[in-house]
Amino acid sequence: MSDPLVFLLAVHNHQPVGNFVSVFEQAFEDCYRPFLRELRTHPNVKFTAHYSGPLLEYMRDKEGECWESLKEMVSRGQVELLGGGFYEPILTVIPEEDRLGQLGMMSRFLEENFQARPRGIWLTERVWEPSLPRTLAQAGIEYTLLDEEHFHYAGIGDIHSYYVTEDQGYSLKLFPIDKKLRYLIPFHATADIETYLREIEEKNGLAILGDDGEKFGLWPGTKTWVYGEGWLVRFLDFLKEKKIRTCTYAEILDARPPAGRVYLPPASYEEMMEWVLEPRDAAVFKDLKAKNPPEARRYLRGGFFREFFLKYPESNLLNKRMVLVSRQVNRTADEEAKRELYKGQCNDATWHGVFGGIYFPHLREAAYEHLLKAERMTAIESGWRKMDYDQDGRDEEILRDSTFGLIVKPAFGGSLVEIDHYPSFRNLTDVLSRRKESYHSRQPQGTEQGKSIHELVKEFPAGSERLFRYDRRPRFCALDHFFSPETSVEKFERGDDEERGDFVDRPYDPEVQGTILRLRREGRVRIGGDSLPIRVYKEIEVRGRDLIVRYRIKNLADRPADLLFASEWNFYQIPEEIAIGPVETTLCGGRLRLEIFPTKKPGSFSLRTLSQSEEGYDIIHQGFCLLPAWHFTLSGEEEFVAHIRLSDRDAATSS
Amino acid sequence: MSDPLVFLLAVHNHQPVGNFVSVFEQAFEDCYRPFLRELRTHPNVKFTAHYSGPLLEYMRDKEGECWESLKEMVSRGQVELLGGGFYEPILTVIPEEDRLGQLGMMSRFLEENFQARPRGIWLTERVWEPSLPRTLAQAGIEYTLLDEEHFHYAGIGDIHSYYVTEDQGYSLKLFPIDKKLRYLIPFHATADIETYLREIEEKNGLAILGDDGEKFGLWPGTKTWVYGEGWLVRFLDFLKEKKIRTCTYAEILDARPPAGRVYLPPASYEEMMEWVLEPRDAAVFKDLKAKNPPEARRYLRGGFFREFFLKYPESNLLNKRMVLVSRQVNRTADEEAKRELYKGQCNDATWHGVFGGIYFPHLREAAYEHLLKAERMTAIESGWRKMDYDQDGRDEEILRDSTFGLIVKPAFGGSLVEIDHYPSFRNLTDVLSRRKESYHSRQPQGTEQGKSIHELVKEFPAGSERLFRYDRRPRFCALDHFFSPETSVEKFERGDDEERGDFVDRPYDPEVQGTILRLRREGRVRIGGDSLPIRVYKEIEVRGRDLIVRYRIKNLADRPADLLFASEWNFYQIPEEIAIGPVETTLCGGRLRLEIFPTKKPGSFSLRTLSQSEEGYDIIHQGFCLLPAWHFTLSGEEEFVAHIRLSDRDAATSS
Repeated sequence: MSDPLVFLLAVHNHQPVGNFVSVFEQAFEDCYRPFLRELRTHPNVKFTAHYSGPLLEYMRDKEGECWESLKEMVSRGQVELLGGGFYEPILTVIPEEDRLGQLGMMSRFLEENFQARPRGIWLTERVWEPSLPRTLAQAGIEYTLLDEEHFHYAGIGDIHSYYVTEDQGYSLKLFPIDKKLRYLIPFHATADIETYLREIEEKNGLAILGDDGEKFGLWPGTKTWVYGEGWLVRFLDFLKEKKIRTCTYAEILDARPPAGRVYLPPASYEEMMEWVLEPRDAAVFKDLKAKNPPEARRYLRGGFFREFFLKYPESNLLNKRMVLVSRQVNRTADEEAKRELYKGQCNDATWHGVFGGIYFPHLREAAYEHLLKAERMTAIESGWRKMDYDQDGRDEEILRDSTFGLIVKPAFGGSLVEIDHYPSFRNLTDVLSRRKESYHSRQPQGTEQGKSIHELVKEFPAGSERLFRYDRRPRFCALDHFFSPETSVEKFERGDDEERGDFVDRPYDPEVQGTILRLRREGRVRIGGDSLPIRVYKEIEVRGRDLIVRYRIKNLADRPADLLFASEWNFYQIPEEIAIGPVETTLCGGRLRLEIFPTKKPGSFSLRTLSQSEEGYDIIHQGFCLLPAWHFTLSGEEEFVAHIRLSDRDAATSS
Repeated sequence: MSDPLVFLLAVHNHQPVGNFVSVFEQAFEDCYRPFLRELRTHPNVKFTAHYSGPLLEYMRDKEGECWESLKEMVSRGQVELLGGGFYEPILTVIPEEDRLGQLGMMSRFLEENFQARPRGIWLTERVWEPSLPRTLAQAGIEYTLLDEEHFHYAGIGDIHSYYVTEDQGYSLKLFPIDKKLRYLIPFHATADIETYLREIEEKNGLAILGDDGEKFGLWPGTKTWVYGEGWLVRFLDFLKEKKIRTCTYAEILDARPPAGRVYLPPASYEEMMEWVLEPRDAAVFKDLKAKNPPEARRYLRGGFFREFFLKYPESNLLNKRMVLVSRQVNRTADEEAKRELYKGQCNDATWHGVFGGIYFPHLREAAYEHLLKAERMTAIESGWRKMDYDQDGRDEEILRDSTFGLIVKPAFGGSLVEIDHYPSFRNLTDVLSRRKESYHSRQPQGTEQGKSIHELVKEFPAGSERLFRYDRRPRFCALDHFFSPETSVEKFERGDDEERGDFVDRPYDPEVQGTILRLRREGRVRIGGDSLPIRVYKEIEVRGRDLIVRYRIKNLADRPADLLFASEWNFYQIPEEIAIGPVETTLCGGRLRLEIFPTKKPGSFSLRTLSQSEEGYDIIHQGFCLLPAWHFTLSGEEEFVAHIRLSDRDAATSS
């Protein structure tokens, strides 16, 4: 028996929560709108489409033509819509309740607006774990698309069929996305595509393509190629002329049984499983893949998505902050708070590969903004609470008050890992550390991927070499340094400072007394060839609209100590928001005032990273490091007293 | 700062549900009892122990000395008890409700009997998936032990520390089991062990051992070595003399923070991840591991546990049958039915490595017995029901009546995949197919593992070569063959038969009419150079205590057809249970009568497999194949009529 060739096309369209409106506008102008226009005039070309929640909401509100034409194509059976987590979360790393919540929100949205409840989903970044089938089945989902790599890992050679898997007896159908088709379409001539399609036809198989819709106009160079030079029209005409049958995924599901049952380990597309590795590990892994024979493909596996939480501690902090909010929100039935929570689960800000991702402050800012809104909508607690929110096996101290929310890590220098400012729904400490990326040391990048965004030769911008210095530790606040007197802010910025104390990342003993968190460490400071016992006593308190950190530094030795003490604070602020003066420093455009006592103008510098995105390399301002420092001598048993106060001035006085 | 060396010992003791009482007796005599006796006289040697539910229940009922001494050692703080799924299931492949149910059952049992609620669990066969932490945390579990391989896959080099992982913000602490310690203890002299312990001490690490308790007396040769030749006493004295500190896992958890956070992909111990592969794949994988440099260890990964459901279709059938029962039982609050269900989830019958596992019929029999009891305790349905219970993407027809339960696969020859006999709680068709195993073609086995059960040179028993023939398809019932007239039962047994029809594993159209399932296929039978259209119409019905399969075979051609038709039935029966006569065949010691009409004595042969266990190779009788066959000629449009009836004779007439 021979089935006719069927070409299954799925396009996945997405813009992250918090992306600039201008990006949405351009994406519709250059890509989503012309794509739908062409397809609409080819009613016999059936396809399957996924639009993430942020795009659907934008389309409904601003892009009437697209919205109506999509409705028409759905109603005439040309288009099958895919569901998914509404705000495009990585399903495996959000709580089960929210998986079901986001999947259900999308299914209801499509049913209400398009009268089409989805049977399949686009799995965000194809991040698979074997426990997903039960969740998806319980959300009423019958199938999803994965990459062919997922199947290679299970020893499946035939990627021109679909399969069934299960978890706890709940089944899910899986379509393997053909990587070669991903590289051919839309970058190659129809003749080349036909050659490959005929190969698939001879194997009696399905031609299965699922890929980003942005490659049809938004990726660099594709607008001209796909529309200006007419690739899309040629391709659609080619399908018609050559009588290549297209249909939706759901139609194939009903027409043919699966080719077999499979069990797939955690995976994503091949590139993602390299991106998640540390640069040195990625190099080893790629080398092993290059050196081994094809039969090793099944067994040679890179990292899996959760490891981004190790590679980028900031991603872990955001994820665990989200979990904290999720537990609170899910104890309520507040649908609006849930929507804010779900917006805060959008995947883009949590990882990095060829897109900017976690390096883009506006995406992280949006995530925290929505999470803080969700949190604020459901409860205000008071008082310090102890819990290991970031899952490092050590307890943090957490305070959520009306103006400020604080997270303190006693085990890590008694530092402030997060300062939330609720009136502006900002995490003020949302700063990304400078860290080595694979592409910092090889340029231009390799060409493992096809044409398009992966083959562009990218040049480092001027001044990049100064950014290839990496932070030794995360950029928290109230990090306690004892420097050599020769240390300067410039040296500190470059990482050439000499740390003489053992306080900055070491455990402090915490004790809560009323509203005050007392942190204490008896450590040592090296001075010349000597090592003196020093006690740092740090109090953290929120009083009304003030956050106050008080220091008492005591020389426990019986001889004098000459000390250069600095308290490091890192703030997520754009340059226009901050004003650093000799007496007063303000943040958030004047809304927040930072008082340093004894009065000092803090040393400061801009925190900048160099990262890649689909268009090239970006130097990104991540915020400011402020470094109030005091040089003093303490005789035996003498104390130095200082404080730093962050005050919210009410809205009337803010700019 | 330097921590003193700590030696953490965990012993895991388990005998499967359904194992022979004699095995339990011998295990206590040779192993569990002498082990506890020795440890009891060394009160300063602290350790952590796991006894699976079947052992705990047996110990409580039959081994008073062990029971009391365990209680004493727990109460004086010498022993920490580990929890786990009560009847030792693989947690990742049972429903979430049952995971929590079995974990809770064990925790309550330990609390009630030992006043010690467990903080850690022994994870059955260390089968890990990254979604486990939430389940375990919700069951109140703080930690478990995994193999060092799990950690290598995450790039963790230091296996002398413990770690923390999380899922959805629920944390779990993980201890890596040191493989070298597994190989040293108890097989090497204390001097060698000391050398390695001192190495660990120099690294400021924990010596972490968790392993089967059966290696202390039950594995071949270990009784003499461990007790007769005094290894255990020497080792315990050595710990005391050398002042090597022992403590429980829970104590370390409280005393030290974890070394870091990790995310581990699905894994088990190294050997398991090879066993799950098909023989040809396992050979490729082992070759790749041998040829690649050490840094490849992180990336070269074998199979994962769920793939046993592909390697052994019988394991999948048992697992999915369990799911069917689980859903029914979990709709009730019947605690006794849950206990039966949990017994039916015991892992041993579902896989195979160096132990007999799925090859042991008495373990599979016990699993089905408990599942059928649980099913019967909660409901009797009637009527045919359509569902894809085995998750192959094609619907089965299921009937559960008072005497018989049936599962029919229309898509696979309209065959009977399961015939349950409820009065005896037996799955009569629980027969294991003959299939190739890695060790069939290499002897003696390699020496990848340490001394003990893995290094024994095993000889194939006489007559083994006749068993190295493998079945082309599963051994279901009512499989419809059209043979060449030259075919004999002997040829069929050897797999040398010539199949001339296209019925045996091909789709039949099902239709339910009242109590009758009608199955129909119009296929073809090759006769000489000719190919004739033939229709097989098969009715399956349960009427009272009778299961009836009626055939109507019609020649749709306009010329005569000379046909040798056989209906293949495979029954799980020991030789004493079956009597095959020219007129009457009985099963289950006379309780069941098999009527064949037109009357024929069926061809028959014993189904035997060759498998390995820790002691050597076993030729195991898995049941009988019965092959009623009729040779007849049909002129055009003529029909042949036959039936097979399996009748339950009431208990009075059974032996």
